[in-house]
Amino acid sequence: MSQFNYYIPTRILFGAGQLDALGRAKLPGHKALIVTTNGKSVKRFGYLDRVIALLQQNGGVEAVVFDKVLPNPVKSHVHEAAELCRKEGCDFLIGLGGGSAIDSAKSIAVVAKNGGDYWDYINGKPVTEALPVVAITTTAGTGTEADPWTVITNEATQEKVGFGCDATFPVLSIVDPELMLSVPANLTAYQGFDAFFHASEGYMANIATPVSDVFALKSMKLIYDYLPKAVADGSNLEAREKVALANTLAGMVESTSSCTSEHSLEHAMSGMYPGLPHGAGLIMISMAYYTHFAKYAPKRFVEMAENLGVDLNGVAEADRPMAFVNALGDLQAACGVDDLRMSDYGIKPEDFPRMAQLARDAMGGLFAYDPSPLSDEDVIRIFTQSYR
Amino acid sequence: MSQFNYYIPTRILFGAGQLDALGRAKLPGHKALIVTTNGKSVKRFGYLDRVIALLQQNGGVEAVVFDKVLPNPVKSHVHEAAELCRKEGCDFLIGLGGGSAIDSAKSIAVVAKNGGDYWDYINGKPVTEALPVVAITTTAGTGTEADPWTVITNEATQEKVGFGCDATFPVLSIVDPELMLSVPANLTAYQGFDAFFHASEGYMANIATPVSDVFALKSMKLIYDYLPKAVADGSNLEAREKVALANTLAGMVESTSSCTSEHSLEHAMSGMYPGLPHGAGLIMISMAYYTHFAKYAPKRFVEMAENLGVDLNGVAEADRPMAFVNALGDLQAACGVDDLRMSDYGIKPEDFPRMAQLARDAMGGLFAYDPSPLSDEDVIRIFTQSYR
Repeated sequence: MSQFNYYIPTRILFGAGQLDALGRAKLPGHKALIVTTNGKSVKRFGYLDRVIALLQQNGGVEAVVFDKVLPNPVKSHVHEAAELCRKEGCDFLIGLGGGSAIDSAKSIAVVAKNGGDYWDYINGKPVTEALPVVAITTTAGTGTEADPWTVITNEATQEKVGFGCDATFPVLSIVDPELMLSVPANLTAYQGFDAFFHASEGYMANIATPVSDVFALKSMKLIYDYLPKAVADGSNLEAREKVALANTLAGMVESTSSCTSEHSLEHAMSGMYPGLPHGAGLIMISMAYYTHFAKYAPKRFVEMAENLGVDLNGVAEADRPMAFVNALGDLQAACGVDDLRMSDYGIKPEDFPRMAQLARDAMGGLFAYDPSPLSDEDVIRIFTQSYR
Repeated sequence: MSQFNYYIPTRILFGAGQLDALGRAKLPGHKALIVTTNGKSVKRFGYLDRVIALLQQNGGVEAVVFDKVLPNPVKSHVHEAAELCRKEGCDFLIGLGGGSAIDSAKSIAVVAKNGGDYWDYINGKPVTEALPVVAITTTAGTGTEADPWTVITNEATQEKVGFGCDATFPVLSIVDPELMLSVPANLTAYQGFDAFFHASEGYMANIATPVSDVFALKSMKLIYDYLPKAVADGSNLEAREKVALANTLAGMVESTSSCTSEHSLEHAMSGMYPGLPHGAGLIMISMAYYTHFAKYAPKRFVEMAENLGVDLNGVAEADRPMAFVNALGDLQAACGVDDLRMSDYGIKPEDFPRMAQLARDAMGGLFAYDPSPLSDEDVIRIFTQSYR
């Protein structure tokens, strides 16, 4: 065991009905910029109106709405919303929705507080303060409610880059599985696998810690047991709760360990093809990706398989690491996402060298956490093996 | 699964050698009141001098020392140190030592910031702010570096009472197992069991959460596997690391679940007999205490037994909860603490009714978290069965 740090300062309110706590919780300001997506669901299901009413109930906290966030949120919207935030005198942000809304709120909080060009911070300009962010999740996938990370795409360069620091942890996160009952089956699966991979990458990462390990193992087990149920019947509140908890735990993994290059590879894919859902991209490359690393981190793979409850009796020692990969394949089949095709989203094999380069340019840092070095040739091979 | 909250804002730096991080970490002030015990070890082993030198190295942070804290810290010292803190213009506290030093630092931080009588805060006067506290642990027992709790004895009334709020979480905690190498075998055992019981009580508490559960199970397993090694050979750094980690995880349990009445019972014992180490008192009553609750929380007890690796094959369903209690007895024997005697510390059977009352008066709140109601008769029976 080497040295490690633990720091997750976010207050998390978890459970069915917890949204109501917004009406009485101590809030970090008096006027909120509510950041949400350009989709219809947050309005159609009444979540936006409920949030505005609960804020009003909480000592008359005012709200302004920015509702343009794209599924892969872009830099120009960060700047536009930060300007709105300043003009309206908002003193805190609420990210309401999935990862795109909450990530955007974090990035807007940085620019609204510090001014300047968001990409300068990505490129290393120090951030010591940001406006406080409250996260209200309506999906279970990114774990962003329990970590400091935000992923924004620079439209000009197609770079899709992660950023985060102490100041971008949400101060308060509300995880209410009732808000997730309306997520369609395919998105439930994509997002659930995103959470799973946060946990599995964080478990095999060479900077995993004993604390990230307990979060990661619990998260993977919950998803393995409950994601197929949540996909099969979106109204199953117990399954939604378990998957929501797994997602929050996976966010805590991201705060205490790290994603590995699987996320870099996928960010290159959906950076070039913004129509591709992030979770779907991860699923597409996952079998080839984990098969590659099974031989480099055999002990961790066996532990992950055992944790899922895979029976390893009678499995030869040498084959045991692949038992995890096989279980991953079973989980994908159980969730109906074992046949996703890159070609359906326009990806072409000719793109692979460019994607490999983009993965390295935009999120190259994650490669350093892989259990063993991954070359550009390895990356292209993983894309090629995954292609359909 | 019901609703739960998660909030542990402390930054924890864990691992052998981490004390050196004090020389470069971001500190919450410019002049520290270092709070430590009246014992010799913190000075003899050079920890106090190292801390002062590291502060100096960290931008010239100044230090004043208060070194009167008793093993069961008392209210009058809280007031005396708070006065010193104000007089010297210290703007943060460092608790250096075991639980007594760190708990004292938290309580001093409350009075130094807010003034008044410490017991008024115990009795409900609201605390929204305190001076920031840095915790540097030299023992593995209380978990206080990862929770907001502080236990102080009111000499006048013999009440030994816990207190804590958001403001009393340490802002920074350094857990360096190298500082624990010098803890004598008997204290290593007492403190390790204190940590174990924070985890086991927090696991059987009726407010346990899925997050406290993962911390608690990992903590118990680490102590079960490594405490006997740390007791047998105090210089075994790996064992010290694992027990230190278990202790910090158990502190996180205290932040996310709660102790149960076992701690109330013991606080009454060592409140009346301050010479009794807290961990030793817990050990003395633990077999009777857990035997009592095995029948009221059978599922949790079986889970705890399985988590420790107890083989339940061939054990009748009805006997499985007691397998945890038996494992607890084995662990006590392995650590050489299965023969502790209340009578050695002056406790008399006539004290039991008074102790039962004191447990209820001073820490009655914890009884509410028991898996089933514990009557005064039950408490006296547990004391009586434990008496030697």
